[in-house]
Amino acid sequence: MRIALVIEYDGTNYSGWQIQPNGKTVQEVIENAYFTATGEEIKLVASGRTDAGVHATGQVAHFDTKLSQPAKSFMHILNNVLPEDIKVRDSFEVDENFHARYSAKRKTYAYSAYIDGFDRPLLRLYSARLNKMPDIEKMQSAKNLLIGEHDFKCFSSSNSSVKTTVRTIYDLQISIENNRLTFTVTGNGFLYNMVRIIVGALIEVGYGRLTESEILSALSGGGRNLLGKTMPACGLTLLSVEY
Amino acid sequence: MRIALVIEYDGTNYSGWQIQPNGKTVQEVIENAYFTATGEEIKLVASGRTDAGVHATGQVAHFDTKLSQPAKSFMHILNNVLPEDIKVRDSFEVDENFHARYSAKRKTYAYSAYIDGFDRPLLRLYSARLNKMPDIEKMQSAKNLLIGEHDFKCFSSSNSSVKTTVRTIYDLQISIENNRLTFTVTGNGFLYNMVRIIVGALIEVGYGRLTESEILSALSGGGRNLLGKTMPACGLTLLSVEY
Repeated sequence: MRIALVIEYDGTNYSGWQIQPNGKTVQEVIENAYFTATGEEIKLVASGRTDAGVHATGQVAHFDTKLSQPAKSFMHILNNVLPEDIKVRDSFEVDENFHARYSAKRKTYAYSAYIDGFDRPLLRLYSARLNKMPDIEKMQSAKNLLIGEHDFKCFSSSNSSVKTTVRTIYDLQISIENNRLTFTVTGNGFLYNMVRIIVGALIEVGYGRLTESEILSALSGGGRNLLGKTMPACGLTLLSVEY
Repeated sequence: MRIALVIEYDGTNYSGWQIQPNGKTVQEVIENAYFTATGEEIKLVASGRTDAGVHATGQVAHFDTKLSQPAKSFMHILNNVLPEDIKVRDSFEVDENFHARYSAKRKTYAYSAYIDGFDRPLLRLYSARLNKMPDIEKMQSAKNLLIGEHDFKCFSSSNSSVKTTVRTIYDLQISIENNRLTFTVTGNGFLYNMVRIIVGALIEVGYGRLTESEILSALSGGGRNLLGKTMPACGLTLLSVEY
């Protein structure tokens, strides 16, 4: 039986999703918790890795089990043993053809930043800090250039090896509440660091340090160095994956 | 010279504000940071203690110094050595008659709770969990009984020893956004655990398990046991102190 899990985690204390030799990862903690609770060894396949420090409210992962349990019970079994910074929000049976990564059709991420001259203890874990508010109209105008199907090669960290760097962004919303900026972006998939680079580039546009024509030039094959910095991991949250 | 500090802290990893034999406290970390930075020993006097796990965006504390520095520089001196979960938001010179505790005229606290059947990793640090949404109209009606000058003895944990248990609540707002409830309360002072007990009682009213006449009876000297539980510390934040 193949089971899909919907998982929320606070990525602050993890070296990302995927198991690696150094550092505690979300995948490893869930697989170990499952083994502790059931005695069965599983391998979790997620919709995608999240980097060190990135959060999720709706990561999806699947695994195969030989246990005969109601699908919903896996949520409770796991939550009993998981630490408080990782919890399963739902568990359900899926078809054997379902694949958390390859079957994913749309993913939505949110990026949060606050505006302040100094670091804020109560905002530091889930948002990045900006010294001043970028111009919202400039960002709203520039984000429209990114919506649709484009080659996002320039919006990816150089060490990624993927078949194609063409991706489609379906929606990108920018909102301000009090002194916090939230970028919410939905696409059919994202390259390595792509959301954090997009947000960094839009903020540069908002500060008047990057122009729309430079964004267009990056989309048609310009260099990564055009686009300003990759925003910090802590501001990024994987909200949901649609199948 | 007497200096006042405005301090923000994430109380998650502290045993409250006030120095005590066991456990790391916010006061101790700031006093030690100051000594590390300047070599001068100081004693910080805050507007009031906050309990273990309680947060602040606007705690105020004063100290006396023999150093000749511009008052603003104390903020920078301290922030250079303070950990990321405690930061000084402002520092300024005050009159020698100023006392962070005795001169305080109004304090405002916020209490945050989210509604969910299960613990949420990304909400757990700064809000408490409620299984279901309490009736907002019932809470709005009952909170009006608490506004004004009352003997709040019943709304205090029993081990407090204060001269008088009469306090004035100037304002109490309840708001809902998405599945989060926020209680914002301003008063001339608060007894031990008073905000957490008020919020717990209002939630009981919202669930229909406590009536307005029981609230009135508590205000006129009924027993503490009437009022339901003290809400968890993590949902509470000291927002500001006015002088």
